[in-house]
Amino acid sequence: MARAWHLMSRPSGMPTPDNFALDDYAPPALGDGMIRVRNAWLSVDPYMRGRMNDVKSYVPPFALGEPMQGGAVGEVIESRAEGFAEGDKVLHMAGWRDEAVIAAGEAQKLPALGVPDQAFLGYLGMPGMTAYFGLLAVAGAKAGDTVFVSAAAGAVGSTVVQIAKAKGMTVIGSAGGADKCGWVAALGADATVDYKSGGPLVRKLTEAAPQGIDVYFDNVGGEHLDAAFAAANPNARFAMCGMIEGYNSGEPMAFRYIMSIIAKRLMLKGFIVTDFMSRMAEFYADMGAMAAAGKLRSEETVHDGLDRQVDAFLGLFSGGNTGKMLVHV
Amino acid sequence: MARAWHLMSRPSGMPTPDNFALDDYAPPALGDGMIRVRNAWLSVDPYMRGRMNDVKSYVPPFALGEPMQGGAVGEVIESRAEGFAEGDKVLHMAGWRDEAVIAAGEAQKLPALGVPDQAFLGYLGMPGMTAYFGLLAVAGAKAGDTVFVSAAAGAVGSTVVQIAKAKGMTVIGSAGGADKCGWVAALGADATVDYKSGGPLVRKLTEAAPQGIDVYFDNVGGEHLDAAFAAANPNARFAMCGMIEGYNSGEPMAFRYIMSIIAKRLMLKGFIVTDFMSRMAEFYADMGAMAAAGKLRSEETVHDGLDRQVDAFLGLFSGGNTGKMLVHV
Repeated sequence: MARAWHLMSRPSGMPTPDNFALDDYAPPALGDGMIRVRNAWLSVDPYMRGRMNDVKSYVPPFALGEPMQGGAVGEVIESRAEGFAEGDKVLHMAGWRDEAVIAAGEAQKLPALGVPDQAFLGYLGMPGMTAYFGLLAVAGAKAGDTVFVSAAAGAVGSTVVQIAKAKGMTVIGSAGGADKCGWVAALGADATVDYKSGGPLVRKLTEAAPQGIDVYFDNVGGEHLDAAFAAANPNARFAMCGMIEGYNSGEPMAFRYIMSIIAKRLMLKGFIVTDFMSRMAEFYADMGAMAAAGKLRSEETVHDGLDRQVDAFLGLFSGGNTGKMLVHV
Repeated sequence: MARAWHLMSRPSGMPTPDNFALDDYAPPALGDGMIRVRNAWLSVDPYMRGRMNDVKSYVPPFALGEPMQGGAVGEVIESRAEGFAEGDKVLHMAGWRDEAVIAAGEAQKLPALGVPDQAFLGYLGMPGMTAYFGLLAVAGAKAGDTVFVSAAAGAVGSTVVQIAKAKGMTVIGSAGGADKCGWVAALGADATVDYKSGGPLVRKLTEAAPQGIDVYFDNVGGEHLDAAFAAANPNARFAMCGMIEGYNSGEPMAFRYIMSIIAKRLMLKGFIVTDFMSRMAEFYADMGAMAAAGKLRSEETVHDGLDRQVDAFLGLFSGGNTGKMLVHV
């Protein structure tokens, strides 16, 4: 019998384990054009928190009592779809479970880029595309720019750091604690900001970037965003990717430097990675070349076993991961 | 002897009359290429508050003990500059005084558009250009869009309302009190929001714009900006022109709906009207045609006498003006 994580109640504030249940479930029958996949790698991502609320957004909310969804990589173990054979490795969105039965059109065979399978949930997957298009297309970052990225030890942020360095930018990354900051520096960041050490973030950022910042890649919101307002150079561009600081609190965020938007003519642009799906080939070509040239390092925080997925997910909000957070089934 | 307002001390928070002094001053000698102007109309504008602080910004701070500057319209009474003759009407930045001696290159003869002279301090001047380029160039507003503009009874906001209507947009304007809202409606606004009446602004705005807003023209910041986040449609564009709510308080602004920037892919862009000086001919041509077609109404709140200028300026922060606030010397 297959097993899947179900959302049993909608969290108010920080989710707790009793919002979720790991239960048996019966995958649909394998109809024409469908494949059965044994999942090997399951993704947890901050954006999933939003799907636990019953509000209209850019992705529909998870249904109560139903298996949840999310990025997954697995192996085809049965196929009734042309072009898919047993043993094929595929990327799809029927995660949070050990076995999935899906239409072949909802799966994508892993490109042959010579990287580990789970990279397609990280720097060559949705987090990587988020980093790539957010930095280069949304913020329009270019060689010579000084880029500040928050949550720089996370899946998206660590990829931003490496793309920015590969493209000739100066990079300042923020992360929580000396270990993570050390890893961000090892990825090539020119300076790091430890948001957990004492003192106001705005001062730490302006010290780390005495020349000011031209681009801010926001994964955090709140105090990080306010510090970026303060440190921004005229005409700086902000790629607004996430505000993990606010996902659970529901509290208003306060900004002391927001008037910089006007005085410095800042541009802020929110984006969703799915806006860039039509440019996936460009992403694989450029990132594949960077990976082949040894310019992309990956780190993963792996939880073993489907029963650990909720722990992995909750860890995203307490800084529990360095690099991409994954579950290995 | 000429007289000018001098900044005597830098205000902390809301300015008070004792920050300023109206004193005699000696204009410079009338050198070659210079003109002497008797000022007739003096402008007060919210942005001037920023120049009273000793901080680097897009315009330098006023110097303590020196005559202040600002938009003014007057008549040339003596000329040593080619192309300028006694009786010419000119627009220049040596305001806050009754008589100015300036280089001819710092003055602009009033275009013959058949409007009152003081219009060049209002809807055909800096506030008008701010409205025009903020709405059409920065926010990219177009026919069919629903536009929300705050401080819609002010010099900039009332011009935004009228340009938007002339260009086929739906307009919601906010203002303080029933009288001002009535005037905004008379300008053509499809709906108004009285921010001084009871209840949360976000509810009033979403009721006034059940279809959501595609463009927000921000003159206020704070709760108005937060309401715009809540009411925004996907891909809405925000022209960030001013945040008068924060000019004096120095307090952080709190936002409950700022995560909409990401979920709705919003674009926020700060701008300064001087960025568009090279497009002044386009502005005069389009706005002149609108004025000739009777599509632009103006209202002015006029204080008589140079000695009233500080009162006029302070009135900007207490809702003392409907339309453009002016001093008539």
